[in-house]
Amino acid sequence: MTETVTLTFDDLKGRIQRIFEMAGVRRETAAAVARVIASGERDACKSHGVYRIEGCLRVLAAGKVVLDAVPQVHDAGTSAIEVDAGGGFANVAFEDACDALVARTRETGLAALVIRDCLHFSALWYEVEILAGHGLASLSMCPSYATVAPSGGQTPLLGTNPFAFGWPRAGAFPYVFDFATSVAARGEIELHRRAGTPIPEGWAVDKQGQPTTDPQAALDGAMLPFGGHKGSAISTMIELLSGAMLGEFMSREALDFTGTTALLPRHGALILAMDPSVFARRSGRDPIAEGERLIEAIAGQGARLPSQRRFAARAMAMADGIALTPDEFERLERFEALGLDALSG
Amino acid sequence: MTETVTLTFDDLKGRIQRIFEMAGVRRETAAAVARVIASGERDACKSHGVYRIEGCLRVLAAGKVVLDAVPQVHDAGTSAIEVDAGGGFANVAFEDACDALVARTRETGLAALVIRDCLHFSALWYEVEILAGHGLASLSMCPSYATVAPSGGQTPLLGTNPFAFGWPRAGAFPYVFDFATSVAARGEIELHRRAGTPIPEGWAVDKQGQPTTDPQAALDGAMLPFGGHKGSAISTMIELLSGAMLGEFMSREALDFTGTTALLPRHGALILAMDPSVFARRSGRDPIAEGERLIEAIAGQGARLPSQRRFAARAMAMADGIALTPDEFERLERFEALGLDALSG
Repeated sequence: MTETVTLTFDDLKGRIQRIFEMAGVRRETAAAVARVIASGERDACKSHGVYRIEGCLRVLAAGKVVLDAVPQVHDAGTSAIEVDAGGGFANVAFEDACDALVARTRETGLAALVIRDCLHFSALWYEVEILAGHGLASLSMCPSYATVAPSGGQTPLLGTNPFAFGWPRAGAFPYVFDFATSVAARGEIELHRRAGTPIPEGWAVDKQGQPTTDPQAALDGAMLPFGGHKGSAISTMIELLSGAMLGEFMSREALDFTGTTALLPRHGALILAMDPSVFARRSGRDPIAEGERLIEAIAGQGARLPSQRRFAARAMAMADGIALTPDEFERLERFEALGLDALSG
Repeated sequence: MTETVTLTFDDLKGRIQRIFEMAGVRRETAAAVARVIASGERDACKSHGVYRIEGCLRVLAAGKVVLDAVPQVHDAGTSAIEVDAGGGFANVAFEDACDALVARTRETGLAALVIRDCLHFSALWYEVEILAGHGLASLSMCPSYATVAPSGGQTPLLGTNPFAFGWPRAGAFPYVFDFATSVAARGEIELHRRAGTPIPEGWAVDKQGQPTTDPQAALDGAMLPFGGHKGSAISTMIELLSGAMLGEFMSREALDFTGTTALLPRHGALILAMDPSVFARRSGRDPIAEGERLIEAIAGQGARLPSQRRFAARAMAMADGIALTPDEFERLERFEALGLDALSG
């Protein structure tokens, strides 16, 4: 087979859901995970696409995820709604608590969603986009695994700690960014190691805290945060707000718990949602129209808006279907046929 | 006079307050502004210290601040408390609304303070430190003047948009960061222009969007955000959340309104406050103790914590007094004697 295979979103989503259901994951959880993975693939966001299936199955095989976890929403009427994922995937916990978060935010202007004890694959763009679809601005963040040294240090303490923001736009894809607060992803360094090529300067330090371009020394040492001490401070903030503040794992504990960076980490997550129509009310101005003036001026000077490549890929996929390479489709079929047994093949 | 002059905090604060009162600023506002400026000087945070007095007086002389503005707090019982600064200084508006913000945050876990129509000199560390003193974590942000181009662009649209975070520590100064989301401050480029020295690469682009090390070309062009497209996205988020969302000026409008970057900008500000004890409650863990584990591990590997230089200067100043250079003290005395007339000297 040498030709790409084109699937509809629903076909791809259904196939992925069946793979997880066959592996013992409860139906609603499998559906939520499949929705995110199919969305990632649709958006040509390959790191959250079908490539993720194998990683998720490895966590299942390792017994590090609770297959039948049913998220429990706790809403005491405060600004902070909580959902216990119970050691299951974060995606279904978010879905189960989303309506309550949206309703509370519209009512009071500002509300938080705390996700506890979840396996997260950090597709934070998915969450902030859904909230933008409800007309809400939002921030989302979570720790990960301690692989990043604070600026000026040499020992991994911080995670690649993703940070995402969504802002609703009228009649257009929302303004969405979602990035790791490390300069690079660990996987990128691993690719350089395998290829025997040096990594760019500024990505990492060796065990002694000295800058290195040797991928093996970088993997033995620590990655660096983006933007020097400023990015380091933002990554630390993410540890504190979505780890310590929630009483959930920070990146160091998440790594100690799983014992490897090869499996998805288990920790909490924090989402802050804001209703611009509530915040702007007394001003008499339309916050979305105001936002458009800035966003259009950014795009108008030729600067790229974040997520534009993703949205362009999505528009194509919705018109023409989602194209998988022969290799991707073959692996998908292998997982459909063999389930967890495909991992050992 | 060639020797430094040492003042107590209260003496310095009192002198600054009198300068503003003599210039026609209402007593409570003068006191609030003086508290921040004296605190900046105490912390050796020179850009917010006595150096600021002249800038504030210039805004007064230009008629761009409402001298007798009395902040109006609007609390409709939602998560977002608002205070109209009425074209006066932000500091007193923050002080007047702070108790309500603290009370609401403790009650519901999460609350926002919206400051409307204020003159801000962006000492955001001052606000998040006060909230940390009440045991709260907080984020603070505001736009400024459009002097920064978005990553990949060439026309100034974004401000130097400061971003601050505070986290309470037990028995220690809080964890606080406060930084501009531009690589450098405009004043730093101006200093290079006067000295005839090139600016470092990465600070700015010329009018055509090309990287430049020529300070004049940089001033005619645009500064750049820190951290490439990630910092640019964070700066854009600050425009949207603390400008568009509030129905207050973004940096472009603030510049159009004042017509110069030589005076303090007029705009709004957004503070998000969180009570870790509310967020952590169901976990049974102590969020402050958890935070200490990370913060101590960062410091323990020799990485500098943000604000440590400021806190060290404060400890010295509280023990030995606040030392002003002869030039600084002379200018202070000149403002005390002549008020606004000192500006033309």
